[in-house]
Amino acid sequence: MPDSPIRKLVPYANKAKEMGRKVYHLNIGQPDIQTPQSAIDAIRSIDRKILEYTPSDGIKSYREKLAKYYHKFNINVDADDIIVTTGGSEAVTFAFMACLDPGDEIIVPEPAYANYEAFAIVAGAVIKSIAAKIDEGFALPPVEKFEKLITSRTKGFMICNPNNPTGYLYTRDEMNKIRDLVKKYDLFLFSDEVYREFCYTGAPYISAFHLDGIEQNVILVDSVSKRYSECGLRIGALVCKNEEVKKNLMKFCQARLSPPLIGQIAAEASLDDDGEYMLNTYNEYVERRKFLIDGLNRIDGVYSPIPMGAFYTVARLPVNDADKFCQWLLTDFEYENQTLFLAPASGFYTQSGLGKDEVRIAYVLEKESLAVCLKILEEALKVYPGSKVRPKYQENVVE
Amino acid sequence: MPDSPIRKLVPYANKAKEMGRKVYHLNIGQPDIQTPQSAIDAIRSIDRKILEYTPSDGIKSYREKLAKYYHKFNINVDADDIIVTTGGSEAVTFAFMACLDPGDEIIVPEPAYANYEAFAIVAGAVIKSIAAKIDEGFALPPVEKFEKLITSRTKGFMICNPNNPTGYLYTRDEMNKIRDLVKKYDLFLFSDEVYREFCYTGAPYISAFHLDGIEQNVILVDSVSKRYSECGLRIGALVCKNEEVKKNLMKFCQARLSPPLIGQIAAEASLDDDGEYMLNTYNEYVERRKFLIDGLNRIDGVYSPIPMGAFYTVARLPVNDADKFCQWLLTDFEYENQTLFLAPASGFYTQSGLGKDEVRIAYVLEKESLAVCLKILEEALKVYPGSKVRPKYQENVVE
Repeated sequence: MPDSPIRKLVPYANKAKEMGRKVYHLNIGQPDIQTPQSAIDAIRSIDRKILEYTPSDGIKSYREKLAKYYHKFNINVDADDIIVTTGGSEAVTFAFMACLDPGDEIIVPEPAYANYEAFAIVAGAVIKSIAAKIDEGFALPPVEKFEKLITSRTKGFMICNPNNPTGYLYTRDEMNKIRDLVKKYDLFLFSDEVYREFCYTGAPYISAFHLDGIEQNVILVDSVSKRYSECGLRIGALVCKNEEVKKNLMKFCQARLSPPLIGQIAAEASLDDDGEYMLNTYNEYVERRKFLIDGLNRIDGVYSPIPMGAFYTVARLPVNDADKFCQWLLTDFEYENQTLFLAPASGFYTQSGLGKDEVRIAYVLEKESLAVCLKILEEALKVYPGSKVRPKYQENVVE
Repeated sequence: MPDSPIRKLVPYANKAKEMGRKVYHLNIGQPDIQTPQSAIDAIRSIDRKILEYTPSDGIKSYREKLAKYYHKFNINVDADDIIVTTGGSEAVTFAFMACLDPGDEIIVPEPAYANYEAFAIVAGAVIKSIAAKIDEGFALPPVEKFEKLITSRTKGFMICNPNNPTGYLYTRDEMNKIRDLVKKYDLFLFSDEVYREFCYTGAPYISAFHLDGIEQNVILVDSVSKRYSECGLRIGALVCKNEEVKKNLMKFCQARLSPPLIGQIAAEASLDDDGEYMLNTYNEYVERRKFLIDGLNRIDGVYSPIPMGAFYTVARLPVNDADKFCQWLLTDFEYENQTLFLAPASGFYTQSGLGKDEVRIAYVLEKESLAVCLKILEEALKVYPGSKVRPKYQENVVE
């Protein structure tokens, strides 16, 4: 399994902290938003004598409430279409293992969540990617490019919508184009929709389950980690209406026995939110997004498209090698004894050489911290030896 | 992935329950023993605002306390040799994935925990097995048989000690023989020791880490599920002193981000037990073991060796096909509207045809329930169409 550019930096971040330096973590999707009180209360009121296994597909009452939650998004599934997993990570891993044989290929628009590749490797599958471009706001590349990649080994598409790392939200037209290919070649559509609550532009969230005629092809990946700031619970889900696939998924679920009990109890309680928690969280991200993107684009040579969803952006920096810059921030730079941990975007591309001057920034910190982060970035770019300021007019040059 | 004989029976058990029948679950290692109060209390006193990811290798303070726990068993490891996992299941899966390439072989004495095979399949590895025999009390087969199986693709041994499903505890002599082979061929020794607290005969528990000269080859698998009746927490561990292997393991850990937060907090609190909890639990299993094994051997045609550890036994029943008998118990039999869910032993052998007249029985229920279970089994065998009573003297015939 390859080492990721982010993981390689972790020891440097730890070292910086050991030296007494304050490190702002914009590298990981760990929000500083509070977990719903209903979840904390549910955990604090556990009154069981034995902390038992749950069913391998999850607690029934949780799956029933989850189905109702999906109905609010016009995702028409029932409890039996839902399998509770140990985080979204396990969901993707099991989806790949249940649907793909060693050597099978899946097509992924990139930049993409780096661990998809890790999970594909675990399944013995191969990722074929089509790069979206920062200058096009990371829109879906022309569908013809995808079709060209399809071989007899191609078994599916993997998308993340709204997208991590770019924040891009696929349009209805783009989703329909994906649907047409899925239908034409009878592929699986693995759709990671964990950020559905975070769509900021009024444009609709199109779930894979909204696409007509491919209900049997869709495997939706979900998680409570980002939605409710419950990363530590390790509760995700697979939603699937295909009985054959569900049967295969269940074999992997049964082998690992059970998803976490306490996490399921807390996740179920989180669904009791009357809308206020989600609205407050949403409003908070709207503010942060505006603040961060404005701030980034004001820094000389920095460019960030305006992300439509999730809580990330991929920004271009005026540096030759963002991997080196991110490492330098941790090893050689400090501004008032503070520095940044950014994620080099190269880790989100499988094609080497792409994203070399891009970083992913997660706006998971409050505005006051983001203001400091912007200042640190600005000061760092002024003194970074590999810095280059790129004339603004070049930014819109499309290959 | 193959379907296991136990899993195939689950729908029948559910159906029996829907019909209002009481089903005694002796098929699964889910104890009815209470979880330590310290763990429940720790969960009930969670006062965090955000349920965050933990480090991918687990919370440091938990690993430090765990190291001290191992020291009590003369396992000389420190916190950095421990990686916290999502249950023992993930521990075995990651161990196989980190150490084995597709096509690599591991040698497993069987009957063995059925999911080892599932996890090996996930890693693309192949299990080669040597059968232990009920008439020899499931002692380790002659080491020469193991050596004959070793090829250029053999990468390790997988053992479970004390053993699930047989309750066998490997002797020092047997462990030394395994050590010699591990050393001679430079193999990994994957050692599942989750039942170490449950050794009943005064014979010593020999950990893989007690074996001289193979410290770099050992990957110990652990879990709090059985020890503290915390199956639902999903907290296990990998213990390893080999830096290269640890580095590989960490890649899989980082890809799945974090083991469960709340589970780690509860598992850490469980280590505060002053010995009373473990002693009471131990005494309870000693009682149950004696009661169950005595009872089994009193039933005409039934034979169970005396298990030395864990909380299972593999018993021989006077039936032609234990798979069919176990299904029949759920579909066609009731005694005072009660029946049994037993695990057909065939699922614990990879070699087909073995264990056909054997079942695994978990003594995870209190004595009063075990008494009812014995009565149900006795009555069932009297009327089961495929029953045969086997003369006692044949039991000791060795091939």
